[in-house]
Amino acid sequence: MSLASLRVTVPESSGPPAPRTNKTAHPPLGRIQREEYPSSWDMAGTLSNPGFFNYGVETHKAYEKRSLSSDIIEEQKKLQEADLVIFQFPLYWFSVPAVLKGWMDRVLCQGFAFDFPGSYDDGFLKGKLAILSLTTGGTASMFSKTGVNGDFRYFLWPLQHGTLHFCGFKVLAPQISFGPEMASEEERKRMVASWAQRLKTIWEEEPIPCSPPWYFGQ
Amino acid sequence: MSLASLRVTVPESSGPPAPRTNKTAHPPLGRIQREEYPSSWDMAGTLSNPGFFNYGVETHKAYEKRSLSSDIIEEQKKLQEADLVIFQFPLYWFSVPAVLKGWMDRVLCQGFAFDFPGSYDDGFLKGKLAILSLTTGGTASMFSKTGVNGDFRYFLWPLQHGTLHFCGFKVLAPQISFGPEMASEEERKRMVASWAQRLKTIWEEEPIPCSPPWYFGQ
Repeated sequence: MSLASLRVTVPESSGPPAPRTNKTAHPPLGRIQREEYPSSWDMAGTLSNPGFFNYGVETHKAYEKRSLSSDIIEEQKKLQEADLVIFQFPLYWFSVPAVLKGWMDRVLCQGFAFDFPGSYDDGFLKGKLAILSLTTGGTASMFSKTGVNGDFRYFLWPLQHGTLHFCGFKVLAPQISFGPEMASEEERKRMVASWAQRLKTIWEEEPIPCSPPWYFGQ
Repeated sequence: MSLASLRVTVPESSGPPAPRTNKTAHPPLGRIQREEYPSSWDMAGTLSNPGFFNYGVETHKAYEKRSLSSDIIEEQKKLQEADLVIFQFPLYWFSVPAVLKGWMDRVLCQGFAFDFPGSYDDGFLKGKLAILSLTTGGTASMFSKTGVNGDFRYFLWPLQHGTLHFCGFKVLAPQISFGPEMASEEERKRMVASWAQRLKTIWEEEPIPCSPPWYFGQ
């Protein structure tokens, strides 16, 4: 598997991020349109229960009937073909920006990414790797156990465990570029270089143990 | 302060949530339009640096020039007038649905909700209370320390500490209705009744201590 096509950039502006795959045969995961919050527009066919709209139920049924909107189907195809998914984003309010949250809410639907049973280690995206690569506004010391923002691992829980692990992904240690906006040009270059260096051997990395002690232990 | 106007409902469907204030003189905080992710459209005037778009910088400057888009200004006014803000939402991926994340990303901008200095206990919304009232897909035991989802307090960190506390809010203990979709009609009624009961004396409640031990302690 080649990594030649990976664009490694530290986003210094805060535009909408787009997750992307690292399989060279495939384009980056699509840039989600800004009008795409979860809604009844995500179902191309008729609703199962139009009188009592339940987004989770409707997307689940639409997935089974193959009647999800075409952009969701396309994103799901790219995910299915990917071995490793890199989520590159600036941290907004200790989480992903809304546009990427919309991607998660819409694309990772029941039936496709998980079911009951079929979550966590049995999630339907098992066998795949995921990694969060993010930039923060705060410095590393602000995101330490004694810093004002608390340990950076705390805010990773909903994303890495509640979302990625829930869908079956094995999660690699996050790539965090702390405070690029406040850093010098030279420091920013070092951040990019260390990420590029890491990518060379990323296929050899072991996933993190995705359980509470990794996040909240001493 | 009267609470008479508060609609207390357990959302059984998963439509887009809208945060709302509890001051009777004011309408609920607006329902955010689905096309409203953070973007350059949030600035009504010219951009400060159109050649290098930085959302955080631009909204900060637009706030100071009073040139944010009118819907953001309206939401900010309602927040300023509120004593207690209730965020009612269904838990999507251990967090708020994208539409509510968009509201946070857009409305709580630098200059209005915080600045440097001016965060956490000095955040600009200090003196106000906030409470998360949410419904989950999983049961309470799934959201316990030994449950598959981990303790429910874990996923509250980015929202209560990283967002609300960051902006100066004091945070009341969350109101969590676990698994209403799987519950009987009678159980759902009990969830609503207990919330209604709590609201009668909510002004007498003490905020939680918003620091790591409350979230991750033993």
